[in-house]
Amino acid sequence: MGDAVSVRRRGRSGGGAARRAERTAIRVDVAPTIHRGIPTFDMHSDEALDIIEHNAETVLEEIGVNFVDNPAALALWRDAGADIRGERVHIPRGLSRKLCAMAPARFTQLARNPARSVEIGGDSLVLAPVYGPPFVRDIGGGRRYATLADFETFVKLAYLSPWLHHSGGTVCEPTDVPVNKRHLDMLFAHMTLSDKPFMGSVTEPSRAQDSVEMCEILFGAERMAQGPVMTSLINVNSPLTFDATMMGALEVYARAGQACIISPFIVGGAMAPVSVTGTLTQVLAEVLAGVAYSQLVKPGAPVIFGAFVTSIDMNSGAPTFGTPEAAQITYGAGQLARRLGLPYRSGGGFCGSKLPDAQAGYETANSLNAGLLAGVNFMLHACGWLEGGLVASFEKFVMDADQLGTLHKLAQGAPFDDNAQAMDALREVGPGGHFLGCDHTQNNYKQAFWRSDVFDCKPFETWAEEGARDTQALAAQRLSDLLARYEAPPLDPDIESQLRTYIERKKASMPDAFI
Amino acid sequence: MGDAVSVRRRGRSGGGAARRAERTAIRVDVAPTIHRGIPTFDMHSDEALDIIEHNAETVLEEIGVNFVDNPAALALWRDAGADIRGERVHIPRGLSRKLCAMAPARFTQLARNPARSVEIGGDSLVLAPVYGPPFVRDIGGGRRYATLADFETFVKLAYLSPWLHHSGGTVCEPTDVPVNKRHLDMLFAHMTLSDKPFMGSVTEPSRAQDSVEMCEILFGAERMAQGPVMTSLINVNSPLTFDATMMGALEVYARAGQACIISPFIVGGAMAPVSVTGTLTQVLAEVLAGVAYSQLVKPGAPVIFGAFVTSIDMNSGAPTFGTPEAAQITYGAGQLARRLGLPYRSGGGFCGSKLPDAQAGYETANSLNAGLLAGVNFMLHACGWLEGGLVASFEKFVMDADQLGTLHKLAQGAPFDDNAQAMDALREVGPGGHFLGCDHTQNNYKQAFWRSDVFDCKPFETWAEEGARDTQALAAQRLSDLLARYEAPPLDPDIESQLRTYIERKKASMPDAFI
Repeated sequence: MGDAVSVRRRGRSGGGAARRAERTAIRVDVAPTIHRGIPTFDMHSDEALDIIEHNAETVLEEIGVNFVDNPAALALWRDAGADIRGERVHIPRGLSRKLCAMAPARFTQLARNPARSVEIGGDSLVLAPVYGPPFVRDIGGGRRYATLADFETFVKLAYLSPWLHHSGGTVCEPTDVPVNKRHLDMLFAHMTLSDKPFMGSVTEPSRAQDSVEMCEILFGAERMAQGPVMTSLINVNSPLTFDATMMGALEVYARAGQACIISPFIVGGAMAPVSVTGTLTQVLAEVLAGVAYSQLVKPGAPVIFGAFVTSIDMNSGAPTFGTPEAAQITYGAGQLARRLGLPYRSGGGFCGSKLPDAQAGYETANSLNAGLLAGVNFMLHACGWLEGGLVASFEKFVMDADQLGTLHKLAQGAPFDDNAQAMDALREVGPGGHFLGCDHTQNNYKQAFWRSDVFDCKPFETWAEEGARDTQALAAQRLSDLLARYEAPPLDPDIESQLRTYIERKKASMPDAFI
Repeated sequence: MGDAVSVRRRGRSGGGAARRAERTAIRVDVAPTIHRGIPTFDMHSDEALDIIEHNAETVLEEIGVNFVDNPAALALWRDAGADIRGERVHIPRGLSRKLCAMAPARFTQLARNPARSVEIGGDSLVLAPVYGPPFVRDIGGGRRYATLADFETFVKLAYLSPWLHHSGGTVCEPTDVPVNKRHLDMLFAHMTLSDKPFMGSVTEPSRAQDSVEMCEILFGAERMAQGPVMTSLINVNSPLTFDATMMGALEVYARAGQACIISPFIVGGAMAPVSVTGTLTQVLAEVLAGVAYSQLVKPGAPVIFGAFVTSIDMNSGAPTFGTPEAAQITYGAGQLARRLGLPYRSGGGFCGSKLPDAQAGYETANSLNAGLLAGVNFMLHACGWLEGGLVASFEKFVMDADQLGTLHKLAQGAPFDDNAQAMDALREVGPGGHFLGCDHTQNNYKQAFWRSDVFDCKPFETWAEEGARDTQALAAQRLSDLLARYEAPPLDPDIESQLRTYIERKKASMPDAFI
């Protein structure tokens, strides 16, 4: 990992307790945000994209989008020049695009450890773990409902992974905590068990507000003013519907200067037309409307062009992952995002498999490769996703996180300076020779090849002697090795105490709710 | 499989036996050669490629290449203007490129079933199975030496796969047949158990000659004159060495009008410099020399720019697969092949895993995706490869072969005609609606999404009731389903009898050899 950085956090507070905490810091290497040295793969023709862009504006003007239970949103749209009929917003051609132009092309999300802040947009790629599964699976315990303890373990794993830039959000649903209180515990875990950037709650506007208030404690008002400290996931209720819950969270975040991903959530054939071009049209229409709305709420609010799209098995109605159609849409949405000048969120380690087996491997690698080459800037679900997102798998988390190293290496591009040209090696070795011992190899071998921390490449006999382990067993070993060396990054105890007080007060203020 | 074709073979002979054989034909659908509707991914800059091309010619001129034990080759090179010192051939800048220009940019390899002939070069992609493993593995029998019976099973599986265009060559080594005779049995299996195109023997020039003679029986002189009926694999003894065995086979094939792949065989860091740019330089130098030599032997001989390159684990010396460096080289060699105007062979379903598990899935999918987007025209090892090529896996063969369907679908590109734009569907469904029942979905759902014949996308409960099978178990089921419906494609019994007689005579003419 030649390009990794190691930074000891400098406490925001100068107190003695903070200094003591700092001295306990262990070194956790994290590779910086990926900056691509390679082009994107522009699969679709300009002719096709022109048509999609034209059709998306036709959809917005003729068909319109619904803003449900949200009179204030309708008023904003009306003032901006849209034609409102009931809850339906008809957006004249050109209006949404004009509003989208107010959003920044790139922004920096601050982390409490400044060395872990991430750039989102342009040639960058930020990797974040799986989001949302109600179940977890591991080799020992099988498939079961996720708990807060599972959640905390995933946050630790994300903190320990050298290839993950981001701690994510709902890495799994802590189902043992009431629905209306679990966001507090999830945020506390991200804030205290990791120093990487994270996501806020979106399940109620009030929970988004809690997220902002907890960040004010963690970061302080001064740092909060420097840029967004959360990037949160606002799903569109596809097709073409913006519900009050998600829009309420978006409004809270936009007004507080926090970043949001505006993300159509589409199982193709069900929530969008059964064609790639038709789906891309709908994705673009929904993003245009959602991003434009964010700019009506707060001009200049940082937002990301999102696209969560997969295909469907038309026989069973089950969603399918790692498919060619999903890749075609991922590539196309990336082209549309770049033409629109917005950061792009898509990709991820998607699979439909119930186990971290070969199917999971094929489907996940198909998805990760498409995400990288499609020019994704923010990759949610980059590791740990299993069973169509119903399950967060511990073993798959570390397998996927390991594979993310290949994205880092691929994205760098191949150097072609004198050293990389290796003419000295070719001259030294000559026909029939061997390169292992030559000077060029000795000088370069450590950084030459990406190396897996999970996979086995040993000879058959050695592998057999070591127990003939499959990938799941190798990953289980990696999992326990990683967790054994976990140590929380230092945090000013005063801040931790204020966060605990905030959470206790909030929890005491409302009865438990489990739906 | 909307684009599949089904053709009943028309016998070359008009005899009654041939007609009777024809009447037994079963329908085996095979998708035609892939013609890409999408661009290639040109990862490397023109500046880098210019340097590599310049350096490759420097290697050929200054360092030179060895043609070992091959005075006739040295004489051909001398006459062409090369500088010969011992067995070392120094090729003046420009000479190899001038000779390469005599090779065709694309050609058709004929199959005995004319509908299965394949185009190689340009925008085509031909998929062929694994080549060379001495071992096989399946879920019941584990890992063991391969036999002729295993070989025959793989030929049947390749025949039955809708996504494989090619029967390949040494799909595994039939180790129960003497080394000097097994090529006869392998060719007989390809000729009789399948009607797809195949590869000839390269392990001795005499065995290449036997391959040509058996093809003369199978195809007849008239059809042989129409174009190559074999594409055979000529590995370069990297670095920069062309041995007499491989060159002898190349000479036989080139003179008989048969196609060859000139393929550097490189584990990076061992047989080439430990850098992507240095390795690409060596690959290009070796291909330039090898292809140029084929044109000295027979101007216009059909040849393919080959590149088998992988990385190495610098700690253990073990080769590694599905790595970012292998992908970088696969992309780069494709760009170099296109600049040279030659068909390109690379890619494949490579992995280092010992089992068809998640590691195998990730590594294989990484390799297959890079192969497709790199513009590979002839993909050897597209399915069945396990354990660094030491093992041909039955289950992985059908998993990989299934995944090849995704390459077909991706390569087509996404249509964007009126039907694909789906504006009628968007208008019909509107905000908050559902697309499953709309007219557009009903008219298009059958062809809309690629569908796996192996993977499971059912709900968890159904999957659990059906035995909670992992991918290997699902593939074993697919394997037995496929083989249960195998029936040999019809062949004129006179031809089959002549082939048997030829083989018996050849086998009787020499003692068994096992090394």
